[in-house]
Amino acid sequence: MFETIAIVGATGAVGGIIRKLLAERKFPHKQIRFLASKRSAGTTIEFAGKTYTVEEMTPEAFRGIDLAIGSTPDPVAKEFVPWAKEAGCVVVDESGFWRMDPTVPLVIPEVNPEAAFTHQGVIASPNCSTTQMVQSLKPLHDAGRVRRVIVSTYQATSGAGVEGQRELIEASRAALDDQAHQAKTFAHSIAFNLIPQIGSHKQDGYTSEEIKMVLETRKILGDESIQVCPTCVRVPVSNCHSESILVETERKITAEEARELFAATPGLKVVDDLANGQYPMPNNCDGDDTTFIGRIREDLSCENGLAFWCVSDNLRKGAATNAVQIAELLTRNAAAV
Amino acid sequence: MFETIAIVGATGAVGGIIRKLLAERKFPHKQIRFLASKRSAGTTIEFAGKTYTVEEMTPEAFRGIDLAIGSTPDPVAKEFVPWAKEAGCVVVDESGFWRMDPTVPLVIPEVNPEAAFTHQGVIASPNCSTTQMVQSLKPLHDAGRVRRVIVSTYQATSGAGVEGQRELIEASRAALDDQAHQAKTFAHSIAFNLIPQIGSHKQDGYTSEEIKMVLETRKILGDESIQVCPTCVRVPVSNCHSESILVETERKITAEEARELFAATPGLKVVDDLANGQYPMPNNCDGDDTTFIGRIREDLSCENGLAFWCVSDNLRKGAATNAVQIAELLTRNAAAV
Repeated sequence: MFETIAIVGATGAVGGIIRKLLAERKFPHKQIRFLASKRSAGTTIEFAGKTYTVEEMTPEAFRGIDLAIGSTPDPVAKEFVPWAKEAGCVVVDESGFWRMDPTVPLVIPEVNPEAAFTHQGVIASPNCSTTQMVQSLKPLHDAGRVRRVIVSTYQATSGAGVEGQRELIEASRAALDDQAHQAKTFAHSIAFNLIPQIGSHKQDGYTSEEIKMVLETRKILGDESIQVCPTCVRVPVSNCHSESILVETERKITAEEARELFAATPGLKVVDDLANGQYPMPNNCDGDDTTFIGRIREDLSCENGLAFWCVSDNLRKGAATNAVQIAELLTRNAAAV
Repeated sequence: MFETIAIVGATGAVGGIIRKLLAERKFPHKQIRFLASKRSAGTTIEFAGKTYTVEEMTPEAFRGIDLAIGSTPDPVAKEFVPWAKEAGCVVVDESGFWRMDPTVPLVIPEVNPEAAFTHQGVIASPNCSTTQMVQSLKPLHDAGRVRRVIVSTYQATSGAGVEGQRELIEASRAALDDQAHQAKTFAHSIAFNLIPQIGSHKQDGYTSEEIKMVLETRKILGDESIQVCPTCVRVPVSNCHSESILVETERKITAEEARELFAATPGLKVVDDLANGQYPMPNNCDGDDTTFIGRIREDLSCENGLAFWCVSDNLRKGAATNAVQIAELLTRNAAAV
């Protein structure tokens, strides 16, 4: 057990869910502390019926903390993680900053739990759009070896935090009332619109979000030969990312076999009855820790192709839940030792 | 010139735009008539500053009409087209009913205009999601032969007519005000949600909309060897369909060559500057007759693959504009004869 645990970035959208999950799942600890930027320090938050004051994240603040779950922007994670390591605190980090560091394991507990135990003080949790995709690729990779993935995402505004969700509401209200609205969190209006860019231009016409899906997938599945072509699109949905995925495998996997493989995989749930209008949708997956799969069918354009539709709560399994599950892995390991 | 022309389904969303386009483009005619179902017959509509009474669509109503542009549901087109043919009236039909009939040409004027002149009384206009995709495939097919297409759509509610657009507004207002709302036009709530089903279950886990994209693409490009794997998704956007397209060609087409090919193709416009946040989006393509292309880049997962993003006003180029352009082709041909 870790005696003293902390949430870093405790006041953000994901930080709030981490707090809820730690309480719900009765995460073992003696003491809990809440760290955030200077701006939020001094405010109070509730945890398991008690009120806590948010502390400012400084090098000294990490003294005495055994395990921290961080959910902060990349530049903040770049700064605080060395402070935490220096203080002997293990970090489960949600940010993108440490994910591709070769000394940092990148972990989805249902996919590569063993990697967590090779950590040198930091374990990274993958990008939300990667996590749900890799969860669904894993059983297919084990059964028939994934060679190529073509994915188009339909990503919710919560991926841009509380501000993204708020902007969707405000911009939509303004559009319905024929009022002007200035986009702030997003580069363009998100009201009843689509923005085919998430992150900045990275390389070869791909965005940083798209390149994450390529590199993180290979790292988590431990197979650099997997080819991924992603298109990431922001859609006017509040929460839950959806993905249209086409996979080519070395051995053909039929729709029926895929359905069985998905159904037998912890963390995945199959909702797939097209004739009766049953498939995952953002508004029926919200608030759930599961990754949902539907529209499972064989590719019409390639012998060994399989197409499906995947929806997951990006704030939960795509972020908070995955990080808490990693922390639970470490706790069980600490208990075993 | 066709002396007497008519719009069948004149009171629908697309019918209204056909009317506007015929006036704007000064479509040559001496007389114009407006036909609709019994329910709408007797109502009045405006055309080029004059008021017309909508007539009921009956076998007799087609007497004296030389050219009709039809925009009706499939069962209505099934019924009225034989009446029109019997009366010697040429029909440009928007519905899905006649498209795959081997005696009926399926035409996009920028792609296969020559097919229009082989008609036996009926010419079909393609499905909206097919049209914009095939427009963008055509220059690639000519330059490097398209072998395979993987497409995920982001389709607007206007694809389900005026009722679809109205339901988006009503359901969104209700959601913002925390009020209940019963979906009618769509099978599920479209407010801030995604519905990965357009049309009914057709075959092998694919919907009727998806199968249209497969079969119509082959027919229009005149190449039965083209493989297409579509995923069609309804998104909370009022108008303009968007598509994430990945094409594999026999000869490699670089992003640069593709950009030049698209830019040189009538009916297409390239908007592609990711570093400066410029790409097509539904809210900047609405009301335009052009099909817009952006996010042009080479596939990261396959040597001869090319990925891009395509947006078009599905009521205009996806329906009304394409039909009027077909009618214009016939008019020019009639003038030449």
